[in-house]
Amino acid sequence: MHALVCDQGLRYDPDLADPVRLPGEALVRVRLAGICNTDLELVRGYMGFRGVLGHEFVGEVVQAPDPIWVGRRVVGDINAACGECDTCRAGRPTHCPSRTTLGIFGRNGAFADYLLLPQANLYQVPDVVPDEKAVFVEPLAAACEILKQVDIHPTDRVLILGDGKLGLLVAAVLRLTGADLTVVGRHAVKLSIAESWGIPVLLVKRGAHLGAMVSSGNRAAGIGLFDTVIECTGSPAGFAEARRFLRPRGTLVLKSTYHGDLSVDMSGLVVDEITLVGSRCGPFAPALRMLECGLINPTSLISGVFSFSEGRAAFDRATEPGVLKVLLRPDEAWMPIPAGTLP
Amino acid sequence: MHALVCDQGLRYDPDLADPVRLPGEALVRVRLAGICNTDLELVRGYMGFRGVLGHEFVGEVVQAPDPIWVGRRVVGDINAACGECDTCRAGRPTHCPSRTTLGIFGRNGAFADYLLLPQANLYQVPDVVPDEKAVFVEPLAAACEILKQVDIHPTDRVLILGDGKLGLLVAAVLRLTGADLTVVGRHAVKLSIAESWGIPVLLVKRGAHLGAMVSSGNRAAGIGLFDTVIECTGSPAGFAEARRFLRPRGTLVLKSTYHGDLSVDMSGLVVDEITLVGSRCGPFAPALRMLECGLINPTSLISGVFSFSEGRAAFDRATEPGVLKVLLRPDEAWMPIPAGTLP
Repeated sequence: MHALVCDQGLRYDPDLADPVRLPGEALVRVRLAGICNTDLELVRGYMGFRGVLGHEFVGEVVQAPDPIWVGRRVVGDINAACGECDTCRAGRPTHCPSRTTLGIFGRNGAFADYLLLPQANLYQVPDVVPDEKAVFVEPLAAACEILKQVDIHPTDRVLILGDGKLGLLVAAVLRLTGADLTVVGRHAVKLSIAESWGIPVLLVKRGAHLGAMVSSGNRAAGIGLFDTVIECTGSPAGFAEARRFLRPRGTLVLKSTYHGDLSVDMSGLVVDEITLVGSRCGPFAPALRMLECGLINPTSLISGVFSFSEGRAAFDRATEPGVLKVLLRPDEAWMPIPAGTLP
Repeated sequence: MHALVCDQGLRYDPDLADPVRLPGEALVRVRLAGICNTDLELVRGYMGFRGVLGHEFVGEVVQAPDPIWVGRRVVGDINAACGECDTCRAGRPTHCPSRTTLGIFGRNGAFADYLLLPQANLYQVPDVVPDEKAVFVEPLAAACEILKQVDIHPTDRVLILGDGKLGLLVAAVLRLTGADLTVVGRHAVKLSIAESWGIPVLLVKRGAHLGAMVSSGNRAAGIGLFDTVIECTGSPAGFAEARRFLRPRGTLVLKSTYHGDLSVDMSGLVVDEITLVGSRCGPFAPALRMLECGLINPTSLISGVFSFSEGRAAFDRATEPGVLKVLLRPDEAWMPIPAGTLP
């Protein structure tokens, strides 16, 4: 099959061996996949991953333990847990210590004609949700995770720091709480998407010091101290900026991952009684419901669609300023299902 | 009056000017005060404080706006808030940006014959609670703050890291939740106090690597991964140890303050979805109730009592290994109330 492989950089492989199912797994033909910032970091060496990249996808089930799944259009939870350890039995399978993660750790990913996931990880996509929306379910679920972890009330002032893909999807989800949101970013084009959803935005020029705007108490521009700040910048510098926006006893949700440690004033967290909440993968079912109900339409985030064979160009495009979601689709050549893989 | 002053080190002043009340303030004659680790750090330069040290005390009201308070034995909330700003009106007076803090910031403290606090900060001490228990109300309140911030259930596994004064008082309070507690420390004498309260303890020799005990899954010794870890070591090294003991999606309560920043793997907090909770001063009323009901008896923590004039010796004692709470009492000389200060 055709695949985009992470192997000391990014490599297109037109002839990778077809995946072989293990018990409990489904074989899924990929219809559409999305490039996430994590993919860009994996190519740069984050987590030392080697294999097929990609964890955001919508596909069609080709083989499954229960034949009722065959032919269904699906998305899938990217963490494949053992289901038997203390962590799994305590209801935290996404933290199973022996988990593999689609396209991130120990499991080939979605930038290929076919992928494998446990059947238990799959969610059927309602017919009213087209591929170009369904491909956003994984990052939307990560945004929904915030609502599982933190109580956000309609009267709260919430700041979303970062106008990238994740920041905008977080904004789209938190907008549903009725809270007083502001999105802060450095790209007018990206912020205009949040604005189109009716969310107040603040454009900060590169190099400008956000803290100064806070300490000057610029309430007219929606700036001041916030009850909750969601750090979605993807940059180590985001933490200090988030702290400046946060009131004492406020909650700082950490969504950014990056390589390396950060120097933090821990005593300041104690004195101000700050709560930090690390937030990663989230629940697929509510993300699908939000798309099905039309509460969220993420298609304005799509900046381009490339085929797997154009993978390098797609990754280059994904790193360009002002670009949001770049999608990947199989080349026409994948269309025939390989012999012997049909049930 | 006699006082212990922090002024590029510790200095005993036998003739400091008597304090002068501002509107709303009460004049309190100090009966007994306690040395906290924060006092040791302030002497070393933490927060740049200059003035009379001390924030743990029990005293007797000499003057007050409402004369009903005069003669009452009291403890007092150490944060003097403005009462008028957004933070105060939102019910967070301990975070008032223009607050002063007794013996810590902008306000002379309790290691003196007399101190001033707003009358609104005072709590009457029930007759059944003697001075040597009441002097622990402030740090007990700081331990109670954890229960205000974090849900601790009777089925939770909770680790208290650190067998110092604060660690033991946190253990005494959290023991009331019925949770499965363990106190980890490096001092057999200190741990024996937690043991006397029926709490399992783990003695770790200096230099031993706690993480190794966790990864070996030493469940027989009560070690493994905990739902909640309370970091009370007072040391920058405590954070990494606390992380090793914490399960994914666990809660790490930060109680330690120290000078300087700490290098932290923030992406690890995101991947493991850890919640960090900074925790500082707490509510006095429940701390007083716990003492009044006899649920907690902290007197076994007392390692010595010195007079203010013996202040240097008291501070030296407080820094000795194995020593817990060192108390300070006025010299006999203070007994007559200064002329003109009576109501």
